[in-house]
Amino acid sequence: MNIVILLYDGFTALDVTGPYEILTRLPNAHVQFVARQKRPIESDYKFLKILAEYTIEEIKQADLLLVPGATVSFLDVILDKKLLHWIKGIHEKSLYTLSVSSGSVILAATGILEGKKITSHWYTQRIQKRIVVEDKIITSAGVTAGIDLALFVAEKICGTMFAKTMQLMLEYSPEPAYDSGNPKNAEEEVLQNAQKRLKEDAIRMRRFTMVGL
Amino acid sequence: MNIVILLYDGFTALDVTGPYEILTRLPNAHVQFVARQKRPIESDYKFLKILAEYTIEEIKQADLLLVPGATVSFLDVILDKKLLHWIKGIHEKSLYTLSVSSGSVILAATGILEGKKITSHWYTQRIQKRIVVEDKIITSAGVTAGIDLALFVAEKICGTMFAKTMQLMLEYSPEPAYDSGNPKNAEEEVLQNAQKRLKEDAIRMRRFTMVGL
Repeated sequence: MNIVILLYDGFTALDVTGPYEILTRLPNAHVQFVARQKRPIESDYKFLKILAEYTIEEIKQADLLLVPGATVSFLDVILDKKLLHWIKGIHEKSLYTLSVSSGSVILAATGILEGKKITSHWYTQRIQKRIVVEDKIITSAGVTAGIDLALFVAEKICGTMFAKTMQLMLEYSPEPAYDSGNPKNAEEEVLQNAQKRLKEDAIRMRRFTMVGL
Repeated sequence: MNIVILLYDGFTALDVTGPYEILTRLPNAHVQFVARQKRPIESDYKFLKILAEYTIEEIKQADLLLVPGATVSFLDVILDKKLLHWIKGIHEKSLYTLSVSSGSVILAATGILEGKKITSHWYTQRIQKRIVVEDKIITSAGVTAGIDLALFVAEKICGTMFAKTMQLMLEYSPEPAYDSGNPKNAEEEVLQNAQKRLKEDAIRMRRFTMVGL
């Protein structure tokens, strides 16, 4: 089971590690972190860096391809024709192609989502679904939704008993103190705070000037 | 707000990144990943490596200290007197000292938990609490419990509105398909599978021979 996880400067760490923690436990899992360059790749809040040990040129195939989202604007990623071509090629032969949060925007840029329903971080879209399945493309909502995504994929591949076992191994028995995790349930003030904060963070972390955006 | 996260070979990735994703958004957060050596540190399932940019000698103070757990046996960590001494010293002046999963075993090895109630991954203990607060030491249960821990700490430091905003930013509105996330609720077969798997994984990933354990 070849699992390929795309990294790019500005990715959200938990978009990667939530699913990773489950997918890496699939039978015979071999996980490869791939980026444009072999080096530690900086996540959106700058401090956490995950090592990319492969370039896209070195990866020709994946059973599972995972594309994380980002808080920053990743215009450089979605304008990188070589990268988009690579994603499309890997997707063509994948078992499942997965995205977390705004990672679906990157998938969209490759053209493979044409005519398909998807989900994404609530900030980037209106359809509020935690997971959306379209044939072998599975997109998930923001950040922590990647954990639910990976459990779903684990069940698809290895069955319910396996997925339940993964849930227990990760003690995934969430007890958030509030019910503010999605815009439907959050108070208006919380929603406004989050929107303001996401906008400010994206601007603060911006790595290049976006003309006309 | 100086946030120091300890890395060591064999740490569980999500124990680190779950809390990180919230703590890094605290006002003026400065997060430092520290280890015995400055290099990419390998997580328990080997594939994911996070870069440690500081050695313990370079870090003299932390407002928040976070110690993650591991699937592997970390006998080398809990026998590392210099490291334990460093943890104790940082803890003495910290605002909060935090552990996720079996990270509490490392805290215990320093002596700072003496006479205190703690929690840990369900596999390593019997008390089933998601978060346990003992003065400024806050321990959490396994892996994903680190997200609940960090939200709790965010509320302590910045108030309820801030914590709710973080919850929404991370779209932390979990929808696990089953209720198998803790040993109380999991079916007997799931519990046995998880125990078997955790034991096997720990043995498979063992980096050294444990005499008498």
